[in-house]
Formats: sequence, structure tokens, C-alpha cells
Amino acid sequence: MILGTVKGTIVSTRKCSNLVGFKLLLIAPYYGDKSNIFVAADTIGAGIGELVLITTDNTTQYALDKSAPIDAFVVGIVDAPPQEIK
Amino acid sequence: MILGTVKGTIVSTRKCSNLVGFKLLLIAPYYGDKSNIFVAADTIGAGIGELVLITTDNTTQYALDKSAPIDAFVVGIVDAPPQEIK
Amino acid sequence: MILGTVKGTIVSTRKCSNLVGFKLLLIAPYYGDKSNIFVAADTIGAGIGELVLITTDNTTQYALDKSAPIDAFVVGIVDAPPQEIK
Amino acid sequence: MILGTVKGTIVSTRKCSNLVGFKLLLIAPYYGDKSNIFVAADTIGAGIGELVLITTDNTTQYALDKSAPIDAFVVGIVDAPPQEIK
Amino acid sequence: MILGTVKGTIVSTRKCSNLVGFKLLLIAPYYGDKSNIFVAADTIGAGIGELVLITTDNTTQYALDKSAPIDAFVVGIVDAPPQEIK
Repeated sequence: MILGTVKGTIVSTRKCSNLVGFKLLLIAPYYGDKSNIFVAADTIGAGIGELVLITTDNTTQYALDKSAPIDAFVVGIVDAPPQEIK
Repeated sequence: MILGTVKGTIVSTRKCSNLVGFKLLLIAPYYGDKSNIFVAADTIGAGIGELVLITTDNTTQYALDKSAPIDAFVVGIVDAPPQEIK
Repeated sequence: MILGTVKGTIVSTRKCSNLVGFKLLLIAPYYGDKSNIFVAADTIGAGIGELVLITTDNTTQYALDKSAPIDAFVVGIVDAPPQEIK
Repeated sequence: MILGTVKGTIVSTRKCSNLVGFKLLLIAPYYGDKSNIFVAADTIGAGIGELVLITTDNTTQYALDKSAPIDAFVVGIVDAPPQEIK
Repeated sequence: MILGTVKGTIVSTRKCSNLVGFKLLLIAPYYGDKSNIFVAADTIGAGIGELVLITTDNTTQYALDKSAPIDAFVVGIVDAPPQEIK
């Protein structure tokens, strides 16, 4: 999974019907190139600036009540910034 | 999902039968390396220059009426350019 | 999907039985780093130098008559080089 | 699969219910860019500093007792650092 | 699919039970960045230094007798180094 920081939201009025009800978050990767912002769907309620854990590709489906065309999904809000050993 | 800008269309006369009926759009990533243009299928009717939301890999299938060999699909047209906090 | 140019073929005598019958093409990406050549399976009959459209990962399976361990498949031959707006 | 070194753990109190029971490890790739740290779920009990083998995307599911939104999973602890021929 | 050269093997004593019986090969990409070594499972019997064809992600499953948490699998041994047109 990827650690990322919530940088904002996007709004799409014309969208697939099974995307209705998801918040669409702009996510900057916490590690690697932070400019590679992507969009993750969220139902947990992550706020701007929070650090979140995201799963990708088809594994998103196992977090959903029913299938949806979502390749990145917020599966957790991280309690504290990670501390990696060197 | 990926935010991208519609840069054009491509035409393929000899193609898989289950690709018939999809518009094939050239998409430049909005974030990251904009020269990494790829092709996404579309049924919403996104126009040249519009900003779209794209899902990838097998999750495209959840936006389709029936399965098709499509690894990038336009799932929404974005209302306004994203505003990311710094 | 990815646009790529057919650069050659490869031959593999010792291979999985369900790869028999596919042509294995060397493909150079049309956009991005052209040196990142990969192999795509083909049944359409794309020739050397032709520009093709390729789908990846598990979505290849929707173009096949029966499942095969193929993560890149030629789903169309492109009629003309793409013209992207700037 | 990817070889990676365990660099720490992360804690997420608010998370998907089917992530409960997995240890969430920070993993630095052994090959390639070691700064591209990602998170893998673990049930084997890999410790900090250990070298592990990770599978990704939907193939993680074949190592689980039941489906979970996990796109990277520790499938083995490597006995000794790899020795690649030049 | 990816062309790669077999650079060695890895041994993992503590591993998922459904990885037992697979040889785990270190693979260097033939094209692109050769330092990005990864691990592929093998049952064909590829030897050190041989050039192999590898499929990735969930498509590996179509080469297996039963599902296993493997995201890269050797599906063929290539007869001769590829000759790409310029």
C-alpha cells in the first residue's frame, strides 16, 4: 500500500453512476516523488493534511460494499508519521 | 485514479470486436510527466482539452456494461482544475 | 492503453502450453521512454513498424478466447500516427 | 515479486475492518530506489531489518484466508542476501 | 511481458505454503534499467544467464495449476537474443 497526504478534493458532476457517494481526494505520495499526485476514493472521512494508507488496483474492491471503478482507495488513516530505521 | 487532459483521439479500424463503440482518447497526465501520453476509452463524451478522471487496470470493468480489453477508462469529467494545498 | 511500435518478434520453444499460437512482438512505447521495450502477444497480425494499441494486465483476458498468461496484448492496429494538441 | 527490507511499522486505528489483524510494515526496496518506501501487510512475523519477499496487486489474495484490501503482502522471509551474478 | 536475464536464485524457508515447489529466480530486466532486479517464480527450469519471458500481476495465475501469491512468473525461455529494428 502507499502512504499519502490528502492535498484536496476534486468534484466531478458528470461521472459513472457507481462513483456517486465517494469523496475523491487528491493524494500526494509521502515517500518518493511528492509531485505525482493521484486521486483516491474515500469513505472513511480523511481530512485535508491527514496521512492515509491507500490500496490500489483491483484490491480496492475488497474494501467496498459493491464493485466500483476505483483503482485507489483510502483503507486507513495513519495515527502518526512513520519512523523508518536507517 | 489519474487526472488527465484529453489531447486527441486515435482511430483503429482493425481492432478487437469488443472495442467497437468506445471512443479512444489520447490522455496527458495532469500531474507528473505530461509527455507520458496514454490511451483511455470513453463513453461519457469527454472533449479535447477537458480534464478527466481515469481508472486503470481491471477496475475499468466495473464501469462497463460488459467486459472489454480496456486498461484505462474515463470515469468522470472534472468540474474545475484541482487546487492542492502546499 | 499504450501506443507502441512493433520492433520485432521473439521465439520461445520452451514455453507455457497456453502461449502456443500467439505471436510474441517486441514493442517500443510510442510515448515516453522508447528504450523500455516489452513483449506483447498478438493474434491480429501486426507487422514490423506498425503502430499498435496494447492493453495490459488482467484486461488482456477479455480479448482472448480462453485465459492465457499474457499481460500485454495487441487490441488494435492504429490507422495513422496520433496528433496530439499542445 | 519484490525483495525489500523491513524499516518499521505503521499504526492505523481508523481503518477498514478487514485490515484488522494484519501487521503493516514499512518496506524499502532492496533493488532500485530504496527511498520508495511502501507498506506491506504481514502475518508471517517479519522483524525490523529482515529481508522479505513481497507479492503485489491482486495476487496477494492467494496468500490470504479471506479477501482483504491489501496490494502488497509478505509471502516469505529470505534466508540470506541474494547473490546476483554480474 | 518482460524479457529478463536470470541472475541467481533466492531461498526462503519461512514462506507461504502455496509458494512451496516454485524456484524463485532473481531477474534483471533485459530492456530498461537492468539494476531493477525482481523475483519471478519458475517451474520450467530456467538456468542462470538464460533469457526468459515473464508475465506479471494476476495473469500469472493462468500459467499455474492452482492459485498462488506470485506476481511474476517465467512463461518461456527465449531461443535467441531479440533483434529489434531501429
